[in-house]
Amino acid sequence: MSKGPAKAKRGIPSKVESFNEWYPFIVEASDLVDKRYPIKGMDVWRPYGWKTMKLIDSLTHSEMDRTEHEEVNFPLLIPENLLEKENALVARLKRAREEGIDPDELRDEEEEGGFKKEVYWVKHAGENDLDIPMFLRPTSETAMYTMFPLWIRSHKDLPLKIYQMVNTFRYETKQTRSFIRVREIHFFEAHTAHADEACATRQIEQDLEIVDNLMEKLCLPIIKAKRPVWDTFPGAWYTIGIDAVMPNGRTLQVASCHHYRDQWAKAFDITYENLDAEQQYVHQTTYGMSERLLGAVVGMHGDDNGLIMPPAIAPFQIVICPMIKKNSEVDTVGESNRIAELLRKSGLRVKVDSRDIRAGQKYYDWEIKGVPLRLDVGPRDIAQGTVFAALRTGGKEPLLIDNIVELCNNKLNEISTELRKRSFEHMNDVMVQLPEFVESDGNWAMVGDIIDGKIYEMAFDGNDAHAEVIEKLTGLTFLGDSTDEYPQERPCLMTGKMTKRRVILAKTY
Amino acid sequence: MSKGPAKAKRGIPSKVESFNEWYPFIVEASDLVDKRYPIKGMDVWRPYGWKTMKLIDSLTHSEMDRTEHEEVNFPLLIPENLLEKENALVARLKRAREEGIDPDELRDEEEEGGFKKEVYWVKHAGENDLDIPMFLRPTSETAMYTMFPLWIRSHKDLPLKIYQMVNTFRYETKQTRSFIRVREIHFFEAHTAHADEACATRQIEQDLEIVDNLMEKLCLPIIKAKRPVWDTFPGAWYTIGIDAVMPNGRTLQVASCHHYRDQWAKAFDITYENLDAEQQYVHQTTYGMSERLLGAVVGMHGDDNGLIMPPAIAPFQIVICPMIKKNSEVDTVGESNRIAELLRKSGLRVKVDSRDIRAGQKYYDWEIKGVPLRLDVGPRDIAQGTVFAALRTGGKEPLLIDNIVELCNNKLNEISTELRKRSFEHMNDVMVQLPEFVESDGNWAMVGDIIDGKIYEMAFDGNDAHAEVIEKLTGLTFLGDSTDEYPQERPCLMTGKMTKRRVILAKTY
Repeated sequence: MSKGPAKAKRGIPSKVESFNEWYPFIVEASDLVDKRYPIKGMDVWRPYGWKTMKLIDSLTHSEMDRTEHEEVNFPLLIPENLLEKENALVARLKRAREEGIDPDELRDEEEEGGFKKEVYWVKHAGENDLDIPMFLRPTSETAMYTMFPLWIRSHKDLPLKIYQMVNTFRYETKQTRSFIRVREIHFFEAHTAHADEACATRQIEQDLEIVDNLMEKLCLPIIKAKRPVWDTFPGAWYTIGIDAVMPNGRTLQVASCHHYRDQWAKAFDITYENLDAEQQYVHQTTYGMSERLLGAVVGMHGDDNGLIMPPAIAPFQIVICPMIKKNSEVDTVGESNRIAELLRKSGLRVKVDSRDIRAGQKYYDWEIKGVPLRLDVGPRDIAQGTVFAALRTGGKEPLLIDNIVELCNNKLNEISTELRKRSFEHMNDVMVQLPEFVESDGNWAMVGDIIDGKIYEMAFDGNDAHAEVIEKLTGLTFLGDSTDEYPQERPCLMTGKMTKRRVILAKTY
Repeated sequence: MSKGPAKAKRGIPSKVESFNEWYPFIVEASDLVDKRYPIKGMDVWRPYGWKTMKLIDSLTHSEMDRTEHEEVNFPLLIPENLLEKENALVARLKRAREEGIDPDELRDEEEEGGFKKEVYWVKHAGENDLDIPMFLRPTSETAMYTMFPLWIRSHKDLPLKIYQMVNTFRYETKQTRSFIRVREIHFFEAHTAHADEACATRQIEQDLEIVDNLMEKLCLPIIKAKRPVWDTFPGAWYTIGIDAVMPNGRTLQVASCHHYRDQWAKAFDITYENLDAEQQYVHQTTYGMSERLLGAVVGMHGDDNGLIMPPAIAPFQIVICPMIKKNSEVDTVGESNRIAELLRKSGLRVKVDSRDIRAGQKYYDWEIKGVPLRLDVGPRDIAQGTVFAALRTGGKEPLLIDNIVELCNNKLNEISTELRKRSFEHMNDVMVQLPEFVESDGNWAMVGDIIDGKIYEMAFDGNDAHAEVIEKLTGLTFLGDSTDEYPQERPCLMTGKMTKRRVILAKTY
């Protein structure tokens, strides 16, 4: 084990009292990343962090295989002129929304798109000025949809379901935070094209099912909310944001799905010949996730002793610590290696720590890294045919060596269950009803206070103006309409109209 | 299966007669890449190509695990000022070589390094000019060695053995070719730091052993040659180039290993405290490979019907084609799926092609993609308890279904053996002795001709001036001293001195 950047690993800040100090400390002290690379917001992934991220990625790969998405890899650089179609599309949709008209009735407009202000530009190569400036992908719609018309000709080519895992780049001007707000982002993006709107809608449903499967493994509760119109991804018909909840009650968008209808297809001329030999525009969706998943895992599950890794993504699910006693006749290291081999054969990820150092130091090292299960192997344990198990979520007990594989799997399941229990309890604790609003002389006021660290829900059936009032009065951000509606209609907190719409508001990262 | 970019898949150019047309045709027709992305030298990896590349990568990951390298991931962008140390180092080494003096006696000089002319520059982000220009990594020495002093303090931190798989970027001005000469390169790089020169030398030996293991799987013969001084990587003490041989007799450098001694450590101040509490410079090595490995596989093994994938990296090792007959009472598709499941359970990668199209079309599609083994399943085969196997390297025979897993594994091994046999025969065919040289009045002449498509070897014990004469007279490039010396001393073709040194010369990509 190479040493971490934090020389003194003692003195972990309190997570509950000062999460904003705990988080940046722990990502380095646990050897996930090194932030001392000389570009702000671009961390070095150290082996332990990269292994964890790749285990998250491999869960995603499995889901992509199951749902018959194919992996591709597109170039990083995008020529500026490809952006023009996107900018025109976005400008037209924006105007249509503002003026309340059908976007198809407007022509594409020239406008400086939002991305232009957030991208890194490549205008020089070697000693040459490039004829056409290029930028580092902030996301790959433009690059991919340039190729789609070449790949899609007939209904037989649909659905087209592809994805890639690549790094994307955003010129962040806000304060950066490892995994949460970085300038080089480890990114996942799925892009699909379908024969019609209904097929694309079913894809969004499948995406949300994939999200649920992944979050189950990461032991994270999430909020799925249809973003309000003003927070919809440019070019999208609607956007569903997937937010995790951090210990401080802030929400962190870890994924999003976009239904594009045929809006991008019209901008990029992506058509297919249907069964009646007519040219039709495809309907498209995208589904994105990022290293924020790891940020949510770190933030949600860790404690004052360090990380707690959900077993599904722990680089080491089990660490075995043989007691090293000089002149002992019992070969604790040999027995530890034997047990490790048994566990590895069953598919578990196991590390044997046979360093000749104090047991307390070993425990400390593996606790801070969040290894879910530790097995201590001493001469007395071996004599009794047991090892002594310590769960990172708390609790210790002896396990029979004869049945060690099954018992370890049970303990790991217990740990996952405990992590889910804790994080779901947290979600329930922080989610509260928004206070009521009263109007007098056209002015709105809130009856009550917003409490720091809480997430708010409300029945809402108002318009954008109402929403604006609420955001202003509460200082919260509309996450949008939860996909979990109220089972029964309730009165909207502003209009009083009965509705099942359950809107979520929060302070966001 | 989405359709490939080449609409008419018939009409594959002849590989033997026109390799330079065959190669670019086949990489697209077999769906490895799409070259129509609007930046020259930056191809889109299609699912079939990306799967193949990832299978090559997974062989590399296994070797890295076996040899205890740890995977990291460094930022893409490198600030310009980090390059200054490298440039100064390179300039000093160059002057020392030219003047024949110990590089330690010279100070670092300021010089425009070679990389500066080959990199993509990022000088703008959003609407801002950056204070310090950055460039896209052409390789990661500079980025990594900036961090090494933070990670290496004592002898306990050594050896440090890390690697990453990332894309690198070179502003190529020469003609681009898929996998062989591209501007965005899928790259592997291992970087190690050791206590002394001997430990670093052993690392180079391990690297060459890893190369051998990988090439065995790819069924490729290679030349390992210590590059001449003028072709040594900047900052390296020596470089060993690993070259594959293409059908046209040109060599393709697919990997390289560099022994840096402590030259980079001195430039980047990478020291450790040894057992005597003294500060020592580390000795470093690097080992690089790229997507050129796939280029060599495509070029070496393919034929006029398309690719031939070595089984170790074939996305589908076996394709099963049920005969689709209407009104047949025999469920060929069901039986094919049952066989596929058996094979998959044993770890093989299998595709069932149950499309209702002509058998000839199916065969054609999988031949061009180079699937090593095809199993045809018709009603009569099933009645006989067999399937009909067609090997992509030639030959057909029935296989007993009862023993299908073992028989398929045997056939795949046969195919690997056949590919190795063919490529090693090719290597032997093209490798010939260089004609002799005669001197008269200080002028050298060659006794014989250089034949296109051949690689040359010679006993050589001359100096750089001799080498220059040889390159000029032959039009060939010195690959350097083969790691396979002559078993017996022979006279050097220029000086007549007896030597075991076996130098290889070739036309190179």
